[in-house]
Amino acid sequence: MRGKFIGEYFKDMTTTNYTATNSSVGIVETQYYTYAERGKEHKLESGDTLGPITLAYETYGELNANKSNAILALHALSGDAHAAGVHKGQDNAGWWDDMIGPGKAFDTNRYFVICSNIIGGCKGSTGPSSINPATGKPYALDFPFITVADMVHAQRHLIDHLGIERLLCVSGGSMGGMQALQWVASYPERVRSAIPIATALKHSPQQIAFNEVVRQSIMADPAWREGNYYEYGQPEKGLSVARMIGHITFMSDQSMEEKFSRRLKSGKFSFGFDPDFEVEGYLHYRGANFVKRFDANSYLYITKAFDYFDLSGKKLIPHGKIIDTRFLVISFKSDWLYPSYQSQEIVRLLKRRHVDATYCELNSTYGHDAFLVEVEEQTTLITHFLDKTFNGYLVVDRYGI
Amino acid sequence: MRGKFIGEYFKDMTTTNYTATNSSVGIVETQYYTYAERGKEHKLESGDTLGPITLAYETYGELNANKSNAILALHALSGDAHAAGVHKGQDNAGWWDDMIGPGKAFDTNRYFVICSNIIGGCKGSTGPSSINPATGKPYALDFPFITVADMVHAQRHLIDHLGIERLLCVSGGSMGGMQALQWVASYPERVRSAIPIATALKHSPQQIAFNEVVRQSIMADPAWREGNYYEYGQPEKGLSVARMIGHITFMSDQSMEEKFSRRLKSGKFSFGFDPDFEVEGYLHYRGANFVKRFDANSYLYITKAFDYFDLSGKKLIPHGKIIDTRFLVISFKSDWLYPSYQSQEIVRLLKRRHVDATYCELNSTYGHDAFLVEVEEQTTLITHFLDKTFNGYLVVDRYGI
Repeated sequence: MRGKFIGEYFKDMTTTNYTATNSSVGIVETQYYTYAERGKEHKLESGDTLGPITLAYETYGELNANKSNAILALHALSGDAHAAGVHKGQDNAGWWDDMIGPGKAFDTNRYFVICSNIIGGCKGSTGPSSINPATGKPYALDFPFITVADMVHAQRHLIDHLGIERLLCVSGGSMGGMQALQWVASYPERVRSAIPIATALKHSPQQIAFNEVVRQSIMADPAWREGNYYEYGQPEKGLSVARMIGHITFMSDQSMEEKFSRRLKSGKFSFGFDPDFEVEGYLHYRGANFVKRFDANSYLYITKAFDYFDLSGKKLIPHGKIIDTRFLVISFKSDWLYPSYQSQEIVRLLKRRHVDATYCELNSTYGHDAFLVEVEEQTTLITHFLDKTFNGYLVVDRYGI
Repeated sequence: MRGKFIGEYFKDMTTTNYTATNSSVGIVETQYYTYAERGKEHKLESGDTLGPITLAYETYGELNANKSNAILALHALSGDAHAAGVHKGQDNAGWWDDMIGPGKAFDTNRYFVICSNIIGGCKGSTGPSSINPATGKPYALDFPFITVADMVHAQRHLIDHLGIERLLCVSGGSMGGMQALQWVASYPERVRSAIPIATALKHSPQQIAFNEVVRQSIMADPAWREGNYYEYGQPEKGLSVARMIGHITFMSDQSMEEKFSRRLKSGKFSFGFDPDFEVEGYLHYRGANFVKRFDANSYLYITKAFDYFDLSGKKLIPHGKIIDTRFLVISFKSDWLYPSYQSQEIVRLLKRRHVDATYCELNSTYGHDAFLVEVEEQTTLITHFLDKTFNGYLVVDRYGI
């Protein structure tokens, strides 16, 4: 029923050489594409401009001759371009390694999979921790506001650069799902199909509220220094608390019960304020770990971007427009951060506009994390959906229609 | 369907004199009871001692001749002894004013209602902000650990002081409900009936997780100074973020949608990090307000107390023991902080032990806050339940059985 938690991959590896397994894309390398150079800055939705823009990206599998087999995998809040395989000399498999590889949901024997780090991020793409060419220092809060539409606009430049006219599929979970929807809204003619997972047309006030508390937690830390902390180090305490809040919302009541119940770390109450329960220790670990790998300002910018996101009403498909993008919409029963009703809203909107849309709610207990760990059922659904999309596309091409 | 949010009371008051309305207990005054004086310190569950102990309390209605009409109202995390009516010269009605008064659920024409501030609190009862007699300074973290059983033990001293042998009822929502359950566990023979509302036999790992994030948020603030902030002022930022997290969990996805939806404060996006959405403004307001009225260390001690709380298994009713306390257990469909399944666990445990227990899940959309605002339906249930309990009790008395 489930795959592996990210980071747990190597615990159950029995082969000695990762590249030798059939199910991995093996050793991969991050690539970089820079555009919007000086004088050609990119106009953002806010009206501000940004440039030059670098996108970190990885690709897996081979692009076919007519460039019809390209899939864009879209990452969530804290993800990056490293979606599958491993980097040389390192042992952390990509964030969707269970889903991308030979014979997997996004089968690299058949498809060419691309994943790029979003702008605003901190994993190689231009973001608030990047050097501002105007000052020679990190942008910090001088970084312009970015929206999900801006992220997708940047990805479109990368897809142009790779010479791909039309993507076979765009897919991702959570904010990755929002980007998938935004691709359809911005460039419907360039997207053959979309698989938005555990996502929403717009953030509800509860989702905005959680993000705002996360931002306030970071900004309440004096070490944040109004965003100018780069020479001093991260606002560790605030960022750690922010991530702890996040982790509660990523899991479900039931998955926490199954994983931790009320087990104590040391077998008895401490009658003190150090963590007593295993669940507390887990959150501390997750918080402390996050501080080492993610830029606090990026967290602020990205959470704000998806609070602003809203493709409800006629914004996904403008009035009078007909689109032929096929959809597979997936949600998870125990996901209370992006509840199924939000996925059903996407499907309702698509059906009303006569779009070919399939919906499936999976019975996972993993909460929002399920899009990363519920591998088996997602694989069945996605394999079948892509198969139908890909063959249909090829047939059309073959007969020149 | 709903009552008034606390603090909104006077907005819809049309009478000029509060005491003149039929449904209010009118002007009330907080009283104080001190015991466990020097040399007679109170032993706590942790093994530590505490004394002297002061309890702030209020009473409403009249104790009858045979002292059989006393009801103990038990407050939640940030509540206090001021449950009903108003203080002279002030306009804030008590936290359960919609439920306690003439003709209300806890009808002060018939019953004598008592409410005391818990130990560990900061509203007149002894807590970490009280003066430690050994040092002449606030206890801060020298305050001993307290548990829900310790809170109830202290209340029992107050009930002894008031000369009440047996309470007609103990009732409260959230942590107030835990205290009601603890009364039955500690002193079953002194409780004729119990109405635990929106509560649990024990905290789930998700509930512990939310409390731990709240504590970490407070303790991450340098202004917390390891608890020794009393001469400098509260750790405002950390405590405010903590309370913002709390408020998200007190409401429901639906009640937030109804109250705020995605309405913007100024009608358009700011493309900045100040609150854009009304829901953000509401959380900021709640956070800032809380800092003025609640002690950060009390928040730490009390949240820890209810994380430790666990009356599952044979701890509520010891093996072989028969109790004749009657129960009315109430939960709310949209309460995801204390979900209905936790109330059902209480009922299952009671039924297995042949206890007279009635359960009702109310269809409120207000989330956990419902125990404060869903007045009408709670009133019907509670009025009827108390009526039956009280008359039954009188009949038994009358025939001398």
